[in-house]
Amino acid sequence: MAKIVLAFSGGLDTSVILKWLVEKGHEVVAYVADVGQKEDFSYIKHKALLLGASKVYIEDLKEEFVTEYIFPALKAGAVYEGRYLLGTALARPLIAKKQVEIAKKEGTKVLAHGCTGKGNDQVRFELTWLKFMPDATIVSPWKDKEFITKFKGRLDLIKYAKANGIPVSSTPNKPFSMDENIAHTSYESGILEDPKKAPPSTMFKGFVLPQNAPDKETKLIIEFAQGVPIKVVNLESKREINGALKLFEYLNMIGSKNGIGMVDMVENRFIGIKSRGVYVAPAATILWAAHKDLESITLDKEVLHLKELFAPIIGTLIYNGLWYSPEMEVLMAAIQLSQKGVLGKVFITLYKGNVIITGRQSENSLYHQGLASMNEHGDFNPEHSEGFIKTLALRLMVNGK
Amino acid sequence: MAKIVLAFSGGLDTSVILKWLVEKGHEVVAYVADVGQKEDFSYIKHKALLLGASKVYIEDLKEEFVTEYIFPALKAGAVYEGRYLLGTALARPLIAKKQVEIAKKEGTKVLAHGCTGKGNDQVRFELTWLKFMPDATIVSPWKDKEFITKFKGRLDLIKYAKANGIPVSSTPNKPFSMDENIAHTSYESGILEDPKKAPPSTMFKGFVLPQNAPDKETKLIIEFAQGVPIKVVNLESKREINGALKLFEYLNMIGSKNGIGMVDMVENRFIGIKSRGVYVAPAATILWAAHKDLESITLDKEVLHLKELFAPIIGTLIYNGLWYSPEMEVLMAAIQLSQKGVLGKVFITLYKGNVIITGRQSENSLYHQGLASMNEHGDFNPEHSEGFIKTLALRLMVNGK
Amino acid sequence: MAKIVLAFSGGLDTSVILKWLVEKGHEVVAYVADVGQKEDFSYIKHKALLLGASKVYIEDLKEEFVTEYIFPALKAGAVYEGRYLLGTALARPLIAKKQVEIAKKEGTKVLAHGCTGKGNDQVRFELTWLKFMPDATIVSPWKDKEFITKFKGRLDLIKYAKANGIPVSSTPNKPFSMDENIAHTSYESGILEDPKKAPPSTMFKGFVLPQNAPDKETKLIIEFAQGVPIKVVNLESKREINGALKLFEYLNMIGSKNGIGMVDMVENRFIGIKSRGVYVAPAATILWAAHKDLESITLDKEVLHLKELFAPIIGTLIYNGLWYSPEMEVLMAAIQLSQKGVLGKVFITLYKGNVIITGRQSENSLYHQGLASMNEHGDFNPEHSEGFIKTLALRLMVNGK
Amino acid sequence: MAKIVLAFSGGLDTSVILKWLVEKGHEVVAYVADVGQKEDFSYIKHKALLLGASKVYIEDLKEEFVTEYIFPALKAGAVYEGRYLLGTALARPLIAKKQVEIAKKEGTKVLAHGCTGKGNDQVRFELTWLKFMPDATIVSPWKDKEFITKFKGRLDLIKYAKANGIPVSSTPNKPFSMDENIAHTSYESGILEDPKKAPPSTMFKGFVLPQNAPDKETKLIIEFAQGVPIKVVNLESKREINGALKLFEYLNMIGSKNGIGMVDMVENRFIGIKSRGVYVAPAATILWAAHKDLESITLDKEVLHLKELFAPIIGTLIYNGLWYSPEMEVLMAAIQLSQKGVLGKVFITLYKGNVIITGRQSENSLYHQGLASMNEHGDFNPEHSEGFIKTLALRLMVNGK
Repeated sequence: MAKIVLAFSGGLDTSVILKWLVEKGHEVVAYVADVGQKEDFSYIKHKALLLGASKVYIEDLKEEFVTEYIFPALKAGAVYEGRYLLGTALARPLIAKKQVEIAKKEGTKVLAHGCTGKGNDQVRFELTWLKFMPDATIVSPWKDKEFITKFKGRLDLIKYAKANGIPVSSTPNKPFSMDENIAHTSYESGILEDPKKAPPSTMFKGFVLPQNAPDKETKLIIEFAQGVPIKVVNLESKREINGALKLFEYLNMIGSKNGIGMVDMVENRFIGIKSRGVYVAPAATILWAAHKDLESITLDKEVLHLKELFAPIIGTLIYNGLWYSPEMEVLMAAIQLSQKGVLGKVFITLYKGNVIITGRQSENSLYHQGLASMNEHGDFNPEHSEGFIKTLALRLMVNGK
Repeated sequence: MAKIVLAFSGGLDTSVILKWLVEKGHEVVAYVADVGQKEDFSYIKHKALLLGASKVYIEDLKEEFVTEYIFPALKAGAVYEGRYLLGTALARPLIAKKQVEIAKKEGTKVLAHGCTGKGNDQVRFELTWLKFMPDATIVSPWKDKEFITKFKGRLDLIKYAKANGIPVSSTPNKPFSMDENIAHTSYESGILEDPKKAPPSTMFKGFVLPQNAPDKETKLIIEFAQGVPIKVVNLESKREINGALKLFEYLNMIGSKNGIGMVDMVENRFIGIKSRGVYVAPAATILWAAHKDLESITLDKEVLHLKELFAPIIGTLIYNGLWYSPEMEVLMAAIQLSQKGVLGKVFITLYKGNVIITGRQSENSLYHQGLASMNEHGDFNPEHSEGFIKTLALRLMVNGK
Repeated sequence: MAKIVLAFSGGLDTSVILKWLVEKGHEVVAYVADVGQKEDFSYIKHKALLLGASKVYIEDLKEEFVTEYIFPALKAGAVYEGRYLLGTALARPLIAKKQVEIAKKEGTKVLAHGCTGKGNDQVRFELTWLKFMPDATIVSPWKDKEFITKFKGRLDLIKYAKANGIPVSSTPNKPFSMDENIAHTSYESGILEDPKKAPPSTMFKGFVLPQNAPDKETKLIIEFAQGVPIKVVNLESKREINGALKLFEYLNMIGSKNGIGMVDMVENRFIGIKSRGVYVAPAATILWAAHKDLESITLDKEVLHLKELFAPIIGTLIYNGLWYSPEMEVLMAAIQLSQKGVLGKVFITLYKGNVIITGRQSENSLYHQGLASMNEHGDFNPEHSEGFIKTLALRLMVNGK
Repeated sequence: MAKIVLAFSGGLDTSVILKWLVEKGHEVVAYVADVGQKEDFSYIKHKALLLGASKVYIEDLKEEFVTEYIFPALKAGAVYEGRYLLGTALARPLIAKKQVEIAKKEGTKVLAHGCTGKGNDQVRFELTWLKFMPDATIVSPWKDKEFITKFKGRLDLIKYAKANGIPVSSTPNKPFSMDENIAHTSYESGILEDPKKAPPSTMFKGFVLPQNAPDKETKLIIEFAQGVPIKVVNLESKREINGALKLFEYLNMIGSKNGIGMVDMVENRFIGIKSRGVYVAPAATILWAAHKDLESITLDKEVLHLKELFAPIIGTLIYNGLWYSPEMEVLMAAIQLSQKGVLGKVFITLYKGNVIITGRQSENSLYHQGLASMNEHGDFNPEHSEGFIKTLALRLMVNGK
């Protein structure tokens, strides 16, 4: 009989798992990570205790999530398969790392999650656990023969819940699954499994689709220092928001209203299965766009091109659960250095799904109007271009002969 | 005194250059490439002859431009610095290559263009010329000391034009410069040189900004074979458009109406100068998005990830005028092979600047619902994931010790 | 009871496995791949039948191994972790693919190998099997609980062999394991497991260490066409060897005599374990060096640089058993194209472990003495360099300000 | 009339240039960088003054060259086109940077070198100058029309020297050019311009070819900390050498005796011309090999693979004179981090051109015998491999269907 720290969400799966583990005689410590999902945490705590948890930890990780996970990914311009801004992938290593800390505090080495055996999250949890606790014992019921023989699907879970006094949400079962944190809301599974069919507009929680967003521009200035946002100004309301978490929440709110940041895609899970997901990431979408734009005037050309090489590599590492890996550390040292001069303001208009960048400004700008201008020769001697081109052409001419 | 083939646009610069070359005693053959710019070509011909051209070639390159330049770039997902779809960069090698063919026909080796000495187009023209005619003599007045001493800026050109009977457009001088072809319309220079200031909405020619686009969805199906679009269907009008050029023009038309494809960015020119450009590329924007989406179900994961590595490399080569280079040939052999199975349909909604992909379908789909589903175990044995993760964790555990 | 096609080497492991499978009631078809290992194949056949195999296939794959596996890797300059020329990794997909063909002929879907559960070869076999026979049943005793419980190590195997009349080599047990094929001989395990200790000189089979090689140069000319060797000439003996297999065997012979091609390294297995291996690959070492050298005058600069990007990627794919993968196919399309002009002669001196390249020559050479010479200005206008450098410096100057 | 700081070697070219500049009325400050070339610096000083230099700076840069340029390149495993260890390329930015410092001290902005207009060194000098002194005036006689009209080749230089009392070496003119520093000796030009012809054995200065090296092994232990060598022990003489410069010089001496580190290659100059060079880099060759070997047990697999991606990129940047560039800074931040655990000992045998690594050892080793062993199951559960392989095969199976 072990003492198990279970990552507990309060949902059907982890509720059943908690109960099942308790019934098998284990002591279960429930650990609830608050990464921005909209939940009644006191109810979740109550539920965990009701199901037999010996203790419940509820940790507010929102600030740390934004500054230590989302912002580094922003600096890297990390993205998976060109579109996914990694909302869930970024939260997992944080949640998993804290879980190890709790296990250490509780004097146990047994860790449990409720992720499925076909998805990415199991990998992200377990790789992080094993990184920080190489001798951890992993309890992963959805990969456990006994558990998956007993529970063949959702119906078995509900039956078990009812039979065991586990409160099941009275609202009708959603025909898809949802994961929510401050970085994004993701939808997958169920009706989304047919990649040909559009998601129903009713699916989106707290997000106004572009078609339903107000026919009105929202103008913002986002200010960055060292590659991260430090201030958002709403030009109409004159509201000024400072602080990482505060401005991120504000951008989520204002972005959601204006239909910003929905992506519908099929992606390749780490384990090689293609999967359809719909992601809504308003703040991240705005910030990724603004940051890239600001880099265009503050980064050297070749640094920017190096970052284009790194972005999909870093995106894939994050997606694959390798946030805490030696290669990530090495790449992030490069990213970190690249960001020292990424500061200044980006002028943005949000409008019905569009993030329109209308201007950018930096005291560290590498843009020089005199050099750029086509109307004046400026500092630049156009005769140099002849030598430049003729030199570049040398090898082409030899090849062409 | 040489026989010179001049790439002639009919605009102020190349008109002055034509006249200037004729005055210096050269024979000038004017070559006008029709790559989709909206011009009165018979008037341009008339103008060239008036200015002293001994002959005028007008070549309709639109079809070839779409199929042999834009579509290969589409297959590669080529993009420069994450945003620019390479509209001008793709046209240049085609125009330059045809110009060499005309020079050969005309029995000369002297080639001229009117590009500035600070820009990218000079590189694209000259590298292509030297590739196909290594012993070409290049006439590039904007890099010629005599010419740039005489013509310090636009005012000098206008003065010369007036003095020499060169018709100057009676419309007031636009405060920016514009390049147009079927792939895009680009704007730069003048008022755009301050990267902080938004472009005026009046600048856009034949393009409706998202804010002014109809509050109405336009639903399309785009069908691909071997990585290129072969059919577009408008679900409302039931119109069906086939043929590369026809469907590209249609997508430009319908995209322009719906505010699709505007990018405002600062980019790094090949010669190392940062420059602000505004690009409007409706058809390309729609097709790049649709193609990427279709690849998500028809490309193997690792092929897709390889393509992410190649896309910025290929985009940079195209941008830099290296379309006709040995390295491009090598990379495109890989791209070509990757596209054999990229076929199927993408369902798209255009709405006020948004290209919303709502579904995708392919008889060659690598997406398997049974594998993807979180609700059934399907063909997949979740116990395998344990071994997968434990194996991946081996090196992390050793590092973590 | 199944019909199983077992990859059979005649060694202790696969002999025990054969017997064990037969004892469990299966029909076992023994498949022996001749990839150049020095064995008495008629004795191996006899042994397989003795142990109960229902049938024995012996396939001479040497020619195909050289032309379809080793030479493509040579074209790519494929190498793993900078040193390992992939001798074993290249043989596995060939052996495994043929095994599937035999299974199809025999009307079975059950395939077996004797590779350990900690190594790379299991991956290479099984990925190839599953690629060509996705519904194959895999029998891998060293990953089978029953088998590994029964056989804890080499001693158990020997005991079982003796008890079951399996002939065990009378020579004393070698304190390392060896894999041999035409591409190389590899040594690992046993006394090699201490990475600090040098391998004993007595370990090497048929290979003369540099220290013991003749104090005498051997001069060769190797001629290539389309990236592969077509002729070897020994300048002393005047012997001329043509044909892929013949010349490869000759280079192995002459290289072995001269101490060429030994590497002692620690590498990272696919499964993440570090492992020490000693490889002896005389012909491959000579050819890899000669090919790279010939590319230096026949490949365009940027193609060569692209190949430097691809070489470790391709090397890792081969190492990881992904020879038959979509991404390999895509990369090899690029490699294939790059090799069309790689032809000519390389002049080589072998001497006590050294492969000294003394000259190279090609009718397709891109080397131009007039351009290269520092003593004459040739075709090159040195003033162009000023423009080249000044243009390159633009961004550095802006950064430096 | 300007005050010019000339990088002065004392050779024919810079002697003529010094005189020529003085004759044109300039004040010339001669700057001699001691980067390990074997020269009589007091004679060079005397010569410079004789030719009219107003002042002579002789700077001993050897220690800084080794620690701040060669060792960082070693950490990166930087190499150009797979073979060139960048001896000259690494010295140039150091020399050029010091030259700017002298110019600042002397209150001038005019800098001169004697490099040819077709080579790499001009680029390396000038990019570094412009980086640290963007408003520098560059004097590069071999790109100056007046100079190159007057001096068409070596004969004109000698004639001028004789006519102007410039001492010309009495030894007959070498039929090749040579550049020497502590990192390497390079040979190019003259008789080496025919890439088919082997260099004469008499060409090599202070280097014993493998064929002439003693028939005797030299055994060394090289100890590293944080990726750089800190101690060399000769196992026979028991000599122990500490200190960066001291041990580098020792390895050059012992390597030269044993025929270590000669490369004969055709390379692609930055300006696109192919060029044949012969390099002799004993210490660098030994250290690059030892460092790579030590990384094999101290670097995580994926970090090592990242470094394989970076090595040719960094090698090309160094070769191209971009040592002081923003992209180099970013890449080196990653390299720097990767090296923190690269410590331990490498056991090496030098023998007639061979660098034979016989063992490696580190207290930070990530090699674990128990995991690696094929003879025991150790910590590793071989059943996990099944899941690993089956999971990897998923996408191949779908593709194979």
